[in-house]
Amino acid sequence: MRRKPCPGLVITLGDPAGIGPEIVCRALRRGQWRKQARFLLVGRRRDVERWWPGLPEVDEKALEPRPGVWFYPGGGPEVEVLFGRPSRIGAEAALAALRAGIRLVQAGVAEVLVTAPINKEGLALAGQKGKGHTEILREETGVKAVTMLLEGKRWRVALATTHLPVRQVAAALRVQGLMATIRHAWEYVARCSGRRRPGPVAVMGLNPHAGDGGALGDEEGRLIVPVLNCLRRQGLPLVGPVPADSAFLRYPREGWSALVALYHDQGLAALKALEGDRVINLTLGLPFPRVSPGHGTAYEIAGKGKARLGAMEAAIARGLELAELRIPGGTPGRR
Amino acid sequence: MRRKPCPGLVITLGDPAGIGPEIVCRALRRGQWRKQARFLLVGRRRDVERWWPGLPEVDEKALEPRPGVWFYPGGGPEVEVLFGRPSRIGAEAALAALRAGIRLVQAGVAEVLVTAPINKEGLALAGQKGKGHTEILREETGVKAVTMLLEGKRWRVALATTHLPVRQVAAALRVQGLMATIRHAWEYVARCSGRRRPGPVAVMGLNPHAGDGGALGDEEGRLIVPVLNCLRRQGLPLVGPVPADSAFLRYPREGWSALVALYHDQGLAALKALEGDRVINLTLGLPFPRVSPGHGTAYEIAGKGKARLGAMEAAIARGLELAELRIPGGTPGRR
Repeated sequence: MRRKPCPGLVITLGDPAGIGPEIVCRALRRGQWRKQARFLLVGRRRDVERWWPGLPEVDEKALEPRPGVWFYPGGGPEVEVLFGRPSRIGAEAALAALRAGIRLVQAGVAEVLVTAPINKEGLALAGQKGKGHTEILREETGVKAVTMLLEGKRWRVALATTHLPVRQVAAALRVQGLMATIRHAWEYVARCSGRRRPGPVAVMGLNPHAGDGGALGDEEGRLIVPVLNCLRRQGLPLVGPVPADSAFLRYPREGWSALVALYHDQGLAALKALEGDRVINLTLGLPFPRVSPGHGTAYEIAGKGKARLGAMEAAIARGLELAELRIPGGTPGRR
Repeated sequence: MRRKPCPGLVITLGDPAGIGPEIVCRALRRGQWRKQARFLLVGRRRDVERWWPGLPEVDEKALEPRPGVWFYPGGGPEVEVLFGRPSRIGAEAALAALRAGIRLVQAGVAEVLVTAPINKEGLALAGQKGKGHTEILREETGVKAVTMLLEGKRWRVALATTHLPVRQVAAALRVQGLMATIRHAWEYVARCSGRRRPGPVAVMGLNPHAGDGGALGDEEGRLIVPVLNCLRRQGLPLVGPVPADSAFLRYPREGWSALVALYHDQGLAALKALEGDRVINLTLGLPFPRVSPGHGTAYEIAGKGKARLGAMEAAIARGLELAELRIPGGTPGRR
């Protein structure tokens, strides 16, 4: 691979019925980023045209590593999609852009993939029931385990399980999966946190008060403590299992660099409450870094030009940092 | 019952091995409260003496309703208890004080019970395995259902289930219990929030994204929505089921007056993260209001005079407000 004088990011526009094309275009037109890096916006021409008329299409020359913003045709069907509604056409456009974006990053044209939101209901209409970005990224890249990590300004939370009914959480927690999550989280902060000596990763207990010495559940003693001890022997600096209800207060006081929550609401209720609308979402374990805003398609305000840009700006800024790190193999968290 | 010219609070000193006696005495010596209300500190003489030497013991005259602070002998064994360790003697002292405190409030000597922390390990040594304040209060008063509500400066969270392993949460949620929790929360804010038209109570979904329309669990459709509809028909202003991960952001924006979380960490991870160390704990459904600081015995710093007073001060301040409200029947949330 030739040496690149400026970092490159591929940004997919997401569901055209949502706020994706709007927040990508408005964030990039406003920010100073286009002088620092090369951005390829992947999607349909008609969706870009609405928010950034005349954005030049990529050509041979534009694939040269120089700063700027270009449109890259994502191949989705160029027919109208109504704002605010899931549809097969919208989902197919989003999928086509995502697949094109993955190919571009895998071909070395850019270091990092940033994705705008897609809609799960729409994906189901396009034959991708129950899937989201994470599942499709895993399929397309052929990796085994990926980890979802959410990041705000002060707190980071990786999830050991993601979109599961609470009824299934305890049974879904297994040694291999928990180990992969903790490892991904540690390797990410070790390589990408910008701290030379990042603080430990803290792992939550599953149960209230982290099981209270066994009185409130046995998963801590049976699963979590043995996993932590095993990883500690391999040199990972870990704290835990910690009770979820004091974890976010202890995090800054004790200099932790990430939290591992064992299920969705245990980690995200507090993270989103503390960090507001700026939270970004990273997928760890892929052959390249993938970043996105932590919110969804926001159908109720799509097409109106009033979407807040905070999370997309944070995603682009973090994507740029990760692209500049040029991690060997390109892979935060990959083994 | 004779008319009381000034409100009365009973404060139990909790486990003598913890920070309870210290935070009660230091908070009351420092604050201006003793000019506004009558406080009876219930516990052992030796524990009070350490932090407030010479505090007068209650006598016939002191039971008259006039402002001030008195010691009320709680009847626990007056032998030494080491700081920082659970013990049978310490737990027996805490239990005796709690029972004496309950009797005083039930006899009409005071309107509100404030409790300092006890230790569950110690209670187990005293033959009260698996119990805490809430369970003992329920036993002693003979009520059927009580609700634990935690309150900070901006957010209130009532819990539909409390100290249960995550594995058991889904099965433990039942129509009757959930209804009682929501009713207790609403009646509390309706009577005690200080707002003439309190905002609605928002009830969380059990599963991530409140079940995502059934894709992530069926408890929302099967249990929570029907319960909410039933209570709405009875006139309760309710919102939900709301996803836990946006609930705390929406709470102030949408003017909610309380949240009902369906299990411990879903509500408390975010509440304690947002409200820090000032969170207080209320038991709803008793024949009288009961308030306590949201923290525990803090054995690691007990006896050193360096405990933070924030939560105990908040508990006393809230107890005083509740005493001044003189709710008919004395019972926020009781049916």
